[in-house]
Amino acid sequence: MARRDEKAITPRNQDYNRWYQDIVLKAELADYSPVKGCMVIRPNGYSLWENMQKTLDSMFKATGHVNAYFPIFIPESFLKREAEHVEGFAPELAVVTHAGGKKLDEAMVIRPTSETIMYTMYSKWIKSYRDLPLLINQWANVVRWEMHTRLFLRTTEFLWQEGHTAHTTHEEAWNEVLRILDIYAKFAEEWMALPVIKGFKTDAEKFAGAVKTTCIEALMQDGKALQSGTSHDLGQNFSKVFDVRYQDEEGSWQYCWQTSWGVSTRLIGALVMAHSDDQGLVLPPRLAPIQVVIVPIFRDEASKEKVLAAARKLKEQATSAAISVVVDERDTVSTGFKFNYWELRGVPIRVEIGPRDVEDKSCLLVPRIPTRVLGEGERRQKEKVSLESAPAAIKTFLGELQAALYRRALDFRESRSRPVDDYGEFKTAIREGGFFWGHWCERAECEAAVKEETGATIRCLPIDREKEPGKCMVCGADSPQRVLWARGY
Amino acid sequence: MARRDEKAITPRNQDYNRWYQDIVLKAELADYSPVKGCMVIRPNGYSLWENMQKTLDSMFKATGHVNAYFPIFIPESFLKREAEHVEGFAPELAVVTHAGGKKLDEAMVIRPTSETIMYTMYSKWIKSYRDLPLLINQWANVVRWEMHTRLFLRTTEFLWQEGHTAHTTHEEAWNEVLRILDIYAKFAEEWMALPVIKGFKTDAEKFAGAVKTTCIEALMQDGKALQSGTSHDLGQNFSKVFDVRYQDEEGSWQYCWQTSWGVSTRLIGALVMAHSDDQGLVLPPRLAPIQVVIVPIFRDEASKEKVLAAARKLKEQATSAAISVVVDERDTVSTGFKFNYWELRGVPIRVEIGPRDVEDKSCLLVPRIPTRVLGEGERRQKEKVSLESAPAAIKTFLGELQAALYRRALDFRESRSRPVDDYGEFKTAIREGGFFWGHWCERAECEAAVKEETGATIRCLPIDREKEPGKCMVCGADSPQRVLWARGY
Repeated sequence: MARRDEKAITPRNQDYNRWYQDIVLKAELADYSPVKGCMVIRPNGYSLWENMQKTLDSMFKATGHVNAYFPIFIPESFLKREAEHVEGFAPELAVVTHAGGKKLDEAMVIRPTSETIMYTMYSKWIKSYRDLPLLINQWANVVRWEMHTRLFLRTTEFLWQEGHTAHTTHEEAWNEVLRILDIYAKFAEEWMALPVIKGFKTDAEKFAGAVKTTCIEALMQDGKALQSGTSHDLGQNFSKVFDVRYQDEEGSWQYCWQTSWGVSTRLIGALVMAHSDDQGLVLPPRLAPIQVVIVPIFRDEASKEKVLAAARKLKEQATSAAISVVVDERDTVSTGFKFNYWELRGVPIRVEIGPRDVEDKSCLLVPRIPTRVLGEGERRQKEKVSLESAPAAIKTFLGELQAALYRRALDFRESRSRPVDDYGEFKTAIREGGFFWGHWCERAECEAAVKEETGATIRCLPIDREKEPGKCMVCGADSPQRVLWARGY
Repeated sequence: MARRDEKAITPRNQDYNRWYQDIVLKAELADYSPVKGCMVIRPNGYSLWENMQKTLDSMFKATGHVNAYFPIFIPESFLKREAEHVEGFAPELAVVTHAGGKKLDEAMVIRPTSETIMYTMYSKWIKSYRDLPLLINQWANVVRWEMHTRLFLRTTEFLWQEGHTAHTTHEEAWNEVLRILDIYAKFAEEWMALPVIKGFKTDAEKFAGAVKTTCIEALMQDGKALQSGTSHDLGQNFSKVFDVRYQDEEGSWQYCWQTSWGVSTRLIGALVMAHSDDQGLVLPPRLAPIQVVIVPIFRDEASKEKVLAAARKLKEQATSAAISVVVDERDTVSTGFKFNYWELRGVPIRVEIGPRDVEDKSCLLVPRIPTRVLGEGERRQKEKVSLESAPAAIKTFLGELQAALYRRALDFRESRSRPVDDYGEFKTAIREGGFFWGHWCERAECEAAVKEETGATIRCLPIDREKEPGKCMVCGADSPQRVLWARGY
């Protein structure tokens, strides 16, 4: 019974959304809560988030950032000071009107993002050019009241980090925007095994209050784009409104140049969508909370003892080699059940040890997906290794698996990316999903028309691609470069 | 100017509350926010919290606990299900009545604690004895609308961890309560250098909804007690209301036995109050974000270069030895300013390197407070050591300082703790503050009378002290043991 339930994942090609939901729920990453639009992040999902946090946090700290914590409440009046900002967020606000048994004099909103409350403090703290740059990050929960929610990808409350910096020059601020975008891209590619396109958002798609928004965009298996991180150049938009000023070396007062940037628990959704299959979750080894599961296989008490001893010894050795390992010692479920159980949960490598293996002093390593031997083309489905060499062999296999996942995601993206010049062709192609490189005249009207007619948006104006001029696929006017079109989450 | 401002800490014996506030603000641990009752935790304070989190989190994980995240919103009706619980928290709730531009059908409260939302999920997840024990912890922000707030000690929003576990037997749950209390006490004593008394709360002081509350209590320098962590036996109070049940091995349904426990950013307040002095913050080396500051001392450009080179080399070597070091290279402020600056911020050890030291290949180590040579009585104000041996000498000094801080706090507590048998004497003594071991007949009337007349409460019924029977200091009736009386925060 339990086994069938475990296996009942809707196949991707039958119903992609159900497939995604099945994996999140059955791998116990998250669950629906009784609070509309809010999810519960279960231990399996939260430990993934902890690994993401640990990595990103050390990258931020290595580049001079420090963490702090600001209030979750924002007086309604603060939000109204920056006109674009409040317009962007007003429809999604949750409002506290009563507290401590009384009606509040001024209602408080729950932070949808913290620019306004943080910069009120920055205005107090920053006095001189010596106080700059100010490089602060916050790990926090935020609330945006959403009508249509989806586990991890869009929920009323979510967890994120938001960096907020202040600088003496626009150039320095802009370098910060790009430095963070590079950190996000590096994290996505090297840890999440997720290839991304770095670029600029159009004015229609930028952050409410920013001068320019940069982003990384990834392609999911259903051909939709997922924005996986944003880094904003705020110019002096907020510093002028919140009076964030410094005295320069000559003693005259100047407005700061500011940036803000963030990634959220949405990245867990990206991870699931990018790599998983019809058997369940697939996790990149560098982020997997459990990298290896050892499944001892035995029929009788005599063999059980020997097999368990070998399994525990291997666990100890692998743990010393900084590999995260569990031994599935349960005797209430079958071996087949265990295989499915850990496959569903995305553990990168399964190690099987049976009585014969113990006699041979060997074990069998089985990766969650076939890998390639590093630098060669051969696919590896499994490998028998000596128990002695197993920790080293596991390390190698984990590296191969990390590379194979990135390679598979990149191959998939390339197979679903192409240039399109004809708008009629675009309208047909977009239905099947994918990344389309199409020309755009830089006018908001053409962008809006495509969105209206096809649901696709400009995901970004790419940073790293060569600019090839052409004609707008909608109106035929001059276009300085191809931009990235796709339907998005 | 700046220097005088830095030094302007109100002396403890002049105004203890101002002294505390001065240290928190001037050491930049926290700041007042424009939101009533909410503080901003600044980078210096937040990095302390990060160190506390890291240590506690690894202690929880080493004992089998996992982290998860539950919604910040709780439907009002959930909170009302457990009668004592809602009675305890109702006056402090912040309520969201509007969201997404509409009035909500049911108002949501912002979690003051998460029993009700978590156990609603536990009820769904727990099916069999095989699912138990369930050992989940959450790091989160909570909100309790407070009228009288004080930085770190009592704020409307604060950060904490809340553990919530479910078990098959009361005995197992009770062992969990005590296991966590031991972790809290170990953390307080060995990391915070803060001696604590472990004990049980009286019924009047227990957590709203618990069968029994255990706690650790510490003495601050003004003679007031600070509750520094609580661990609750919830019995089946919540499991019966939220239907948290499991099928036992015979297949019949049983209610779970539950516990909850937490510590908060209040611990930062305890740390400040327990160790700091009129020069500023004093931090225990095991939690100090910066353990060592190297102050290079020079008069001209020629000596500057040599001194800086020696300082940077020492930093590198100390960093390799897992010591957290900064070099204060600023040339816009004087050496005296730097000494005060780092003293105020509580950095445990200052290293001075001047031109002569470089010639001698030596440096001077100055601890934030005098230490004792380990195992001996001699006080150490400073020590000249060779540059080569400096990293090892710093390690030793840090260990001595950690021990000296604990010892000083313990000596202080013992000097301010005594048995009292006469209520008249108690009423006089309590005004000066301290821990008083007085007899109590276990009747709520006597407890209430003391609180009413003196402001003191029973901090706890101690766990580790021998029970010595006597007569209640208030009514003279039989008392099974002395209990801990004090005024508290």
